[in-house]
Amino acid sequence: MKAGIQVATSPYGPEDQLGALNQITSAMQAAAMERTDAARIYDLSIDYFVGMPSFQAAGDPSYQIYMSHTPEGTVVDNLNGVGSEVNQRVCYSGDVIFMYTHTGTHIDALNHFGVDGKIYNGFSASEHLGSRSWTKGGAEVIPPIVARGVLLDIARLKGVDCLPDSYAITVDDCVDELARTGLTLNAGDVALVRTGRMRYWPDGSRTLGNPPGLSLDAGRWLTAQGIAVIGADQECVEVGPSQHEDNWLPGHCHFLAEAGVPMLELVNLEELSQDEVNEFCLIAAPIRLRGATGSPIRPLAIPFR
Amino acid sequence: MKAGIQVATSPYGPEDQLGALNQITSAMQAAAMERTDAARIYDLSIDYFVGMPSFQAAGDPSYQIYMSHTPEGTVVDNLNGVGSEVNQRVCYSGDVIFMYTHTGTHIDALNHFGVDGKIYNGFSASEHLGSRSWTKGGAEVIPPIVARGVLLDIARLKGVDCLPDSYAITVDDCVDELARTGLTLNAGDVALVRTGRMRYWPDGSRTLGNPPGLSLDAGRWLTAQGIAVIGADQECVEVGPSQHEDNWLPGHCHFLAEAGVPMLELVNLEELSQDEVNEFCLIAAPIRLRGATGSPIRPLAIPFR
Amino acid sequence: MKAGIQVATSPYGPEDQLGALNQITSAMQAAAMERTDAARIYDLSIDYFVGMPSFQAAGDPSYQIYMSHTPEGTVVDNLNGVGSEVNQRVCYSGDVIFMYTHTGTHIDALNHFGVDGKIYNGFSASEHLGSRSWTKGGAEVIPPIVARGVLLDIARLKGVDCLPDSYAITVDDCVDELARTGLTLNAGDVALVRTGRMRYWPDGSRTLGNPPGLSLDAGRWLTAQGIAVIGADQECVEVGPSQHEDNWLPGHCHFLAEAGVPMLELVNLEELSQDEVNEFCLIAAPIRLRGATGSPIRPLAIPFR
Amino acid sequence: MKAGIQVATSPYGPEDQLGALNQITSAMQAAAMERTDAARIYDLSIDYFVGMPSFQAAGDPSYQIYMSHTPEGTVVDNLNGVGSEVNQRVCYSGDVIFMYTHTGTHIDALNHFGVDGKIYNGFSASEHLGSRSWTKGGAEVIPPIVARGVLLDIARLKGVDCLPDSYAITVDDCVDELARTGLTLNAGDVALVRTGRMRYWPDGSRTLGNPPGLSLDAGRWLTAQGIAVIGADQECVEVGPSQHEDNWLPGHCHFLAEAGVPMLELVNLEELSQDEVNEFCLIAAPIRLRGATGSPIRPLAIPFR
Repeated sequence: MKAGIQVATSPYGPEDQLGALNQITSAMQAAAMERTDAARIYDLSIDYFVGMPSFQAAGDPSYQIYMSHTPEGTVVDNLNGVGSEVNQRVCYSGDVIFMYTHTGTHIDALNHFGVDGKIYNGFSASEHLGSRSWTKGGAEVIPPIVARGVLLDIARLKGVDCLPDSYAITVDDCVDELARTGLTLNAGDVALVRTGRMRYWPDGSRTLGNPPGLSLDAGRWLTAQGIAVIGADQECVEVGPSQHEDNWLPGHCHFLAEAGVPMLELVNLEELSQDEVNEFCLIAAPIRLRGATGSPIRPLAIPFR
Repeated sequence: MKAGIQVATSPYGPEDQLGALNQITSAMQAAAMERTDAARIYDLSIDYFVGMPSFQAAGDPSYQIYMSHTPEGTVVDNLNGVGSEVNQRVCYSGDVIFMYTHTGTHIDALNHFGVDGKIYNGFSASEHLGSRSWTKGGAEVIPPIVARGVLLDIARLKGVDCLPDSYAITVDDCVDELARTGLTLNAGDVALVRTGRMRYWPDGSRTLGNPPGLSLDAGRWLTAQGIAVIGADQECVEVGPSQHEDNWLPGHCHFLAEAGVPMLELVNLEELSQDEVNEFCLIAAPIRLRGATGSPIRPLAIPFR
Repeated sequence: MKAGIQVATSPYGPEDQLGALNQITSAMQAAAMERTDAARIYDLSIDYFVGMPSFQAAGDPSYQIYMSHTPEGTVVDNLNGVGSEVNQRVCYSGDVIFMYTHTGTHIDALNHFGVDGKIYNGFSASEHLGSRSWTKGGAEVIPPIVARGVLLDIARLKGVDCLPDSYAITVDDCVDELARTGLTLNAGDVALVRTGRMRYWPDGSRTLGNPPGLSLDAGRWLTAQGIAVIGADQECVEVGPSQHEDNWLPGHCHFLAEAGVPMLELVNLEELSQDEVNEFCLIAAPIRLRGATGSPIRPLAIPFR
Repeated sequence: MKAGIQVATSPYGPEDQLGALNQITSAMQAAAMERTDAARIYDLSIDYFVGMPSFQAAGDPSYQIYMSHTPEGTVVDNLNGVGSEVNQRVCYSGDVIFMYTHTGTHIDALNHFGVDGKIYNGFSASEHLGSRSWTKGGAEVIPPIVARGVLLDIARLKGVDCLPDSYAITVDDCVDELARTGLTLNAGDVALVRTGRMRYWPDGSRTLGNPPGLSLDAGRWLTAQGIAVIGADQECVEVGPSQHEDNWLPGHCHFLAEAGVPMLELVNLEELSQDEVNEFCLIAAPIRLRGATGSPIRPLAIPFR
């Protein structure tokens, strides 16, 4: 079956790059924050380290960090020019990172996927893709996200540690889970879907490849509820491999290009699940990499009182 | 005059890597959050782009971003293996970044500077420095910071757009500024010092080199008030060049190694200053780069009601 | 005046990617080698180091090297998994490099410059440019170059240490220099032009920017003699800035796209000049970076008996 | 059995960094070159491409190349500042590479391996290891290598396409192969050992891991003959895994630290083998990466008349 996804024109005007994030009003973010009890803050991120699992099948690099200054090396090389006496006293360390922007806990910006050479709101590669990055739809335009968050703990609904490989979460699963928790999804919410895969992190053999995740139908049902952001505890939010022959990542194309909904990936939902915190204030702000298709992010969940 | 800085032993035990951050209690973070009006959120970050100013004098690289997947290139190279028909339909973009961890708005972790081969709490390079990074005191151990923030708007105090090059902010300047705003500094607070330099960003000729910033005395006075985090709107918080012949960055050595206080650098304080928001809830969580001496961060300030 | 450069169709067929290099026959390379006295080999390369001058004005990175394994760090991190006892005994070091392919002594491949979206022999970006690199005209197709080399020592001809900034070498200069040395240029030769700039290497203030170099007329005269490769002791072979309003690097477009002649840049010709070795066997083989627009190379010159 | 390797003091003096390469005299290189028939040049390198097999088990990166300038992207981003009219006319492409220095056909410099914190000739990490690289024993000091080369085609000797995994080549194998070809090894020669593995390149499943290669005894026998350089058609010259419990790469420690013999790895010997060219002039010059433990190299073999 074909996914048949089309790029959407934003209802917020021809220059809009925010898409569904426009739904989060100042009043809504204030309301979400007011209800919090910040005595306990859930950190939904995983850390970055040499050897961490990441998607490399299409040639992207593994996460890398290197020292650019070491305490003893600085005595030898004097790269800072202050001389050996001072360098023997001062213990100076610096480092660089090199990484695919879709490594670790991160957000997919709207320009990550599109259809027929265009991204959300019709920005085209021919007009807006520079040598180094897009000039539209990048991570730097994503404002700080402060919103009501809802956990859809599908693994718990199904009574399993982790959903099976390639399990396609259905609309009914989403409806059943909301019934179970007694919550509703509202426009402007952040929906976080738990498959259980993060339980096995950082074992790449169990956390990469053939992920359980949202079916395209379930994704479309969620965006129809007006969510502003989607997220999951696996690498691509959607089920893999694709169930649609015309598109290898139809969920990405739907969320990003058709619904204007950015995606949070590799979100650690284990503690929220253990504590059965299904509703919370979500605070998340990606690093503002200009034009980037993705960016590291460290989402926080603060329970409501 | 010598700075005479010594590495501190943490009062929180031999395994402690958090230093002054230990002062922020759950009650304090809850209290800071409760007072907020989140209708207006101040984003204190600047964005990352090719050509942005950064410290390269000691051989560190400029900020770099590259595409690893382009829509048209993917049709040619088929790196994802799904074939030209699907690749002509799906508009796929991906990118990588390469950067010094002390570029843009970032936090300095406690292992960035130390004295005599040791960092805060006595962790030594010989035991804890791997080939790629430190195993202690890195960015990944810094918890989400939610605390009361206080702006010390020294440029406004002095009635200037920007403090002069190499102006050393004194203890009296800090005292006078607190008197002007009627605020006090409490244990566990985040102190953000404004020099005005960010007004000229991204003009590197006016924002890099010879920064106005804290004198060592002022730094010591601030940590004596019990602050948990220090920050500023310039590249190194402290005044440059060093006023102490035994140390080229005595402020770093003091804050990080002697006081266990992480440092926020290149924080954009212009909007807070314009709106005269001197007290706020500061929310900031660095990307968790394991072992890293610094990390990109996007601090948010939410005014109190 | 307009440069008016057109992309050439190769006389060697629609799949040809070698251009003028086709002129070097087996007999010619054997003949060049037979005349050599290899007791003295001239190394025409410069070395790569952190802080070396390079072209960064368009956002390209400076040369970078980092350790991925250090002897002491390996004891701490055990990335190779063999344990501390063996790692304390074995002193293991490894490193990575990150660089613009047009840094240091390097060759420009034919795909580096073209006209109207096409490179030499009509290969187009739309058909042959992948996400990561070109699929035609890259450095990996350049065979080992073994040919007669001729030094055009224009600085010596003019009696100067170094030609003035932006001096445009004329056809007459080339003719005069050949008359001075009594040499002729033949089809298949490598012509190396000396401006004298390498005398000041690695002082970036005197070796980068506004280079003396070949005028477009001189370039066209040289390719008309049938040279297979052009080279110079400065960053771009041609004079800078451009003397033609329709093209910012007309020499590149001419040599690469119109004549199919690869270009050697930042070649160190100082020793050849000092020893007045104007004719030699040139041996040069770029690192075979698939699809790359340039590649590091270490050309050798071996005098004739 | 322990390998029991010791770092050697160079017979060429306390500042010597060349080790066994000192054995190649001007007369020897001239003699090697004089005997050549350069009508046919064997290129012993493999090319670099995204997805190529490489050693990543200890955290090193895969080979990466990225465009820093694309023809269409340059029209959008104008990073060179010349404006859209010129950029639409000129087709500009540039790229960067990022790689472990021990990827593809490369040379191991003497500082790659040592014993007890020291490399060949006693240079120590504490005195000579900067933050970025060693200051002694790096690739940049390796002169152009022009020498007699001898192919030890052990796979052909054994009558197999490729030696079995982890086959340890013996001294007898080397002696038998020389007897078979009627050649002797002389001081200053380059010995290239063929296992047959390159026949399967670039299939990483058959060319990486558990390589057939030289036993430590065979390595010691070869260096006792006075060879200046060792090479092989696999990733580490020596057999893997190690047969000595005190050393995970005893062959590296022997060749580099005990004998001062640089190592050529992943050398493509298939064509030499097919044509039964067992004696030749070897020309090889690594890219001069200052301080680097390894460097890409493109060795050429030119048969003798």
